[in-house]
Amino acid sequence: MTITATDTNRQIRLKKRPTGMPTLDDFETVASPRPTPRDGEVLRRTIYLSLDPYMRGRMSDAKSYAKPVNLGDVMVGHTVSQVVQSGHPDFREGDAVAGYDGWQEYAVSNGRDLRKLDRSVPISTAIGVLGMPGMTAYVGLLDIGQPKPGETVVVSAASGAVGSIVGQLAKIKGCRAVGVAGSAEKCRYVVDGLGFDACVNYKTDDLVNALGDACPKGIDVYFENVGGAVFVAALRLLNTFARIPLCGTISDYNATQKAPGPNLRPLLVNRAVIRGFIISDHADRFPAFIQEMVPLVREGRIKYREDIVDGLDAAPAALIGLFEGRNFGKALVRVSPE
Amino acid sequence: MTITATDTNRQIRLKKRPTGMPTLDDFETVASPRPTPRDGEVLRRTIYLSLDPYMRGRMSDAKSYAKPVNLGDVMVGHTVSQVVQSGHPDFREGDAVAGYDGWQEYAVSNGRDLRKLDRSVPISTAIGVLGMPGMTAYVGLLDIGQPKPGETVVVSAASGAVGSIVGQLAKIKGCRAVGVAGSAEKCRYVVDGLGFDACVNYKTDDLVNALGDACPKGIDVYFENVGGAVFVAALRLLNTFARIPLCGTISDYNATQKAPGPNLRPLLVNRAVIRGFIISDHADRFPAFIQEMVPLVREGRIKYREDIVDGLDAAPAALIGLFEGRNFGKALVRVSPE
Repeated sequence: MTITATDTNRQIRLKKRPTGMPTLDDFETVASPRPTPRDGEVLRRTIYLSLDPYMRGRMSDAKSYAKPVNLGDVMVGHTVSQVVQSGHPDFREGDAVAGYDGWQEYAVSNGRDLRKLDRSVPISTAIGVLGMPGMTAYVGLLDIGQPKPGETVVVSAASGAVGSIVGQLAKIKGCRAVGVAGSAEKCRYVVDGLGFDACVNYKTDDLVNALGDACPKGIDVYFENVGGAVFVAALRLLNTFARIPLCGTISDYNATQKAPGPNLRPLLVNRAVIRGFIISDHADRFPAFIQEMVPLVREGRIKYREDIVDGLDAAPAALIGLFEGRNFGKALVRVSPE
Repeated sequence: MTITATDTNRQIRLKKRPTGMPTLDDFETVASPRPTPRDGEVLRRTIYLSLDPYMRGRMSDAKSYAKPVNLGDVMVGHTVSQVVQSGHPDFREGDAVAGYDGWQEYAVSNGRDLRKLDRSVPISTAIGVLGMPGMTAYVGLLDIGQPKPGETVVVSAASGAVGSIVGQLAKIKGCRAVGVAGSAEKCRYVVDGLGFDACVNYKTDDLVNALGDACPKGIDVYFENVGGAVFVAALRLLNTFARIPLCGTISDYNATQKAPGPNLRPLLVNRAVIRGFIISDHADRFPAFIQEMVPLVREGRIKYREDIVDGLDAAPAALIGLFEGRNFGKALVRVSPE
C-alpha cells in the first residue's frame, strides 16, 4: 500500500526505553495509514497535544501506577482534537473534543473516551488549566492539602501547569501563596503575573533562608512537585499538623539512581502528613472542579500561560525540555491548526 | 541542713546535653531533701520508672514537640508510685498511682497529674502495655493505620514496648502481622511468644528479600518506629493506598548528622500516606483504649514482656541500652519495691 500525504497518520512511537534523561533517539516517527471510522465511531484530527512530566514514567517499565507504553506503541498523552468524520450520533464534524489520543495526528474510537468541549473558553484549556493539570492542582490543594484562610501554602515548580494553579487557588482560599521556581523570570511571573505573595528562585537563592524569609509564619501546606533540595528546605519550615500533597518528584524522574529523600523527623515532630495522590483516583471530583474553575478562568481570576511548540515533530525535544525546566508555562504541542 | 538517709529524695538530673549517644556523664545523681506534702497534696514513692526512646529528644534542645529538660533539672519520665502521705481526699496512703514524676525516688503534687490504679492487673502495666507505649500502639495502628482484615501489617522494633502491641493488635483485627527485630532471640519471641506470623532479623537477614518473603501480599500498614534501612525496605513493598503511621525514628535519635530518608516515589506510585503522630494529641482516645485493652491483657490475649533493672542508679545505663537495642521488652527501672 502506498501512503500519500493526504491519507497518512503521522505518529511518534516509543522506540527505546531511556536510561536517565530521554533523548531524541528514544522516539521514532512513523507514517501510518489514516484510520477510517466505522459505524458508531469518531475520527478526529489532533490540534493540541499536552506534554506532562508523568510521561517519563510511561516510557519506563519500572513499577508505577499505570502500565508503561510498550516499545513500538504510540506515546500516550492528553489531546484536544476536532472531529473530522463521525458515525456517532453525539459527535458532529467540527466538534472540539478532549481525549487521550497520544502523539499522533489522527485517532478513531467509539467516542466513550471523548469529552465534547464548548468554546466559551479556549479549547486548549481542556488539557491545561481546565484539564488534568488544573484538576491535579485543585484536588491536591483542596482535598489533600485542606488549606485554611491565613495559612501559608508553598508550591514547587510554581510557574508550571500545576504549580501556577495551586498558588492562585491558595490565594482565592485566603492563604499566603509562596512559589519556588527555577529562574528570575519565572519568579517575576509567579508574583507579578499570577499574584503569589512571594517566589524563591531555587537556582540562585539560598534556598533555606530565602524560603524562611518568604514564609515568616512557617509552612502549613507544601504542595510537592519536585523532590530533592526544595523538599528538604520545606520540611525545615513545617508547622504543626502540616499537610504535604505529594504530586510528583520531577527532580529525579530521570535519575538512574533514585536519590535519598529527606530525613522525616520533622514529620513526626510536627505531626505532619505526606500523601501521594494520582489524579485518576479522583475522577468523581471532576464536576465540582469544572463548576468552580470555569468561571474563575473566564473571569481572569485564574490565569494560565501556555508554552506551545509547533508540529508533532517538535514533541520529543519539548518533552526533554520539560525535564530540564526549559518550558515556561503549560507545555503544549500544536499538532495542527485550530 | 543535713540530709539523712530517711529524709532524702535521690534524683537523677540532666547534667550535660549529649552529642550523639548519651553517656553516663550526661547525668548526675543528687540527694535532695524529701518533699513534704501540704494540705491538698500527695507525696508518693516511685516504684517503677519507664524508660522510653522519646527521652533522647528531651535531653536535646533541638526543636521538638515538647520542651527540653533544662540542664540541672530532674529527667522526666512516666512512673508508677505508691502514696506515702496524702492531704488530698481522693488519695490514701498505699494507693498505687501512675504519674509523670521523672527520675527520682519521691514526688509531691496536688494530685491532678495522678491516675489511681486498680490492682486487677500488675501495676507496672500502667506505664507499659496499658500506658503510653500501649496507647501509642493502639492509636497509631487503629486510628492512623486503619488496618482491615486480611491486610498485612509490618512493625519495626517488634519486640519492644510499642511494636509488640502493634503486632498483637493487628492479629486481633484479622491482619497478617510481620515484625522486624534485632536478634534471632527477639524474632523467636515475636513469633512464638506473641503470635506474629513472621519476623525478620534486620541484623542478619537480607532485609529486602526476607521482608518480601514475609509479606507475600505486600505491605498495607507499615508502623514505623526506627527509620533507616528498615523504612527503605518497607517502602519497596508498599501496596496501593498503604498507610504509614510514623511513631519514631530511633535509628537516628543519636545521630549527630541526621541521615537522609528514603526516596519517596513509592508513596506517589502507591498513593500512600505517612502521618507523624504524638500520642499526647490523642488523649481523648484513652477511655476507649483502656476499655478495649484491659480485658485483652487480663485474658492473656495481649502479652507483654518487661525488661526491669533495679535501682534508680541503673537508669542511665539502661536508657543507653535502649538506644543500642540491648533491652528485650518494655524497659523499666524498679526504683523501690512494690
